[in-house]
Amino acid sequence: MTTDATGTGVTEQALASLQGAADPRLRELLTGLVRHLHAFARETRLTQQEWERAIAFLTATGQACTDTRQEFILLSDVLGLSMLVETVHGHRAPGATESTVLGPFHMTESPVRALGDDIDLVGGGEPCVVSGRVRSEGGTPLPGAVVDVWQADDKGYYDVQQPGVQPAGNGRGLFTADSEGRFWFRTCVPAPYPIPTDGPVGGLLRATGRHPYRPAHIHFIATAEGHAPVTTHIFVAGGDYLDSDAVFAVKESLVQDFAETDDPPLAREFGVANPFRHARFDLVLERAA
Amino acid sequence: MTTDATGTGVTEQALASLQGAADPRLRELLTGLVRHLHAFARETRLTQQEWERAIAFLTATGQACTDTRQEFILLSDVLGLSMLVETVHGHRAPGATESTVLGPFHMTESPVRALGDDIDLVGGGEPCVVSGRVRSEGGTPLPGAVVDVWQADDKGYYDVQQPGVQPAGNGRGLFTADSEGRFWFRTCVPAPYPIPTDGPVGGLLRATGRHPYRPAHIHFIATAEGHAPVTTHIFVAGGDYLDSDAVFAVKESLVQDFAETDDPPLAREFGVANPFRHARFDLVLERAA
Repeated sequence: MTTDATGTGVTEQALASLQGAADPRLRELLTGLVRHLHAFARETRLTQQEWERAIAFLTATGQACTDTRQEFILLSDVLGLSMLVETVHGHRAPGATESTVLGPFHMTESPVRALGDDIDLVGGGEPCVVSGRVRSEGGTPLPGAVVDVWQADDKGYYDVQQPGVQPAGNGRGLFTADSEGRFWFRTCVPAPYPIPTDGPVGGLLRATGRHPYRPAHIHFIATAEGHAPVTTHIFVAGGDYLDSDAVFAVKESLVQDFAETDDPPLAREFGVANPFRHARFDLVLERAA
Repeated sequence: MTTDATGTGVTEQALASLQGAADPRLRELLTGLVRHLHAFARETRLTQQEWERAIAFLTATGQACTDTRQEFILLSDVLGLSMLVETVHGHRAPGATESTVLGPFHMTESPVRALGDDIDLVGGGEPCVVSGRVRSEGGTPLPGAVVDVWQADDKGYYDVQQPGVQPAGNGRGLFTADSEGRFWFRTCVPAPYPIPTDGPVGGLLRATGRHPYRPAHIHFIATAEGHAPVTTHIFVAGGDYLDSDAVFAVKESLVQDFAETDDPPLAREFGVANPFRHARFDLVLERAA
């Protein structure tokens, strides 16, 4: 029974109650969680009213989630937690592609597409080609590597945000690298866009005076046998918000030139009008531990 | 842009992003939250998979909430956070009634009742009388003080958990103390009960090997002009789980005797059969600051 004024007794009881967890990792995580949660409330002298607002905020965040919207990932993103988890466990073998956040829009399976296909099913944006090679650290190409790609359209919306407006699978593709580890596809140059601001997380951004924009980017998950998968983006060099990404996901090595390219034979090869924008980069995977 | 391996850069960026909050208290709370949340993830080396499970758990917790169920309050309760917030801000004037958690079942307005009314609208439990006086620190009675009461039935369920089975307002009453600050009402002796275990919080309790029971109790919120309201319980002395309350809410001063009473004139006065169980205690409020 508690008789303490500072609440240390409550904290001790709560910590003791977790010691029966069968899974030692769960015990470790919950112990750390209770320690930090209680320290937060004690240090800030969190009031009952503030606690009630927090309960209401978390409840609204959960209730804003649907099959096509993940407001808790968005919350984790804008608090920097998603990027921190990625960074702590990020791939750091010399030369390996750096990882960044998954984001809240990887909730549908990308349609399987052939190399060279256009993932922009609607058109209207500035056409471009993305090409590169999936390689192992050290440089060996990885034939048959799978490259999962997703991006917002040129107005800044993902297909799942606009059912009935965009066809399902717009801006998405699941590609298999060729016998030399190469991948290439057509799309439109992505544009910066605001994360959804009509939910609780939008309210948090407004209350903290933050803009909701992300710099223009394309998402990738690359997987290959015997290698650790990498979840990453490429960012369009020279674009806005590279220094103030709402979710803190920019790493310098991921900023890529989408170069204006005047090369008629190459344009013919890719099936685009010349000149065209061209992002070239390799996805370099660490060998699995 | 982030290039750090330990994620301290991400933490610094996330903290910096909060400094534009117009409300200084919000800035303080969010800064403390981000500091502790990031320290938790860094210290435990939270993995991507664990983060995904946490996102799914929080989402399910939000989606389990309805007009009559508050799973996030339940989560806060079983982690000891609710009790900690109560304790840090609890009333500690000498002799003042100690506070304890609100709990997740104070979501409907208690029906206004006359002193002496029976809040057990169903019957079947062991009848008892609860009586006492609302007083100011120092002892002065507080006429017109309002006493909001709610409790589970003798099977361990609140009315809102059993719509269609229990009448709305069963186990609840809003009483006004008489000209001498006295309050009294009839009810059934409360029983220990498990908190709801069919949601995410139930899964957490099972994973940590914890029982879900709360010792038998009746909830109170007492308010009076010029005084700080108190949110509290009384616990039935001698009952089970007083030393292992699932939500850590027991304080010794709140454990009350529900005494077997053989007093025919008093039984007649209260309108109950003799002998009867009788809990007598005073609610002592601090003067408002």
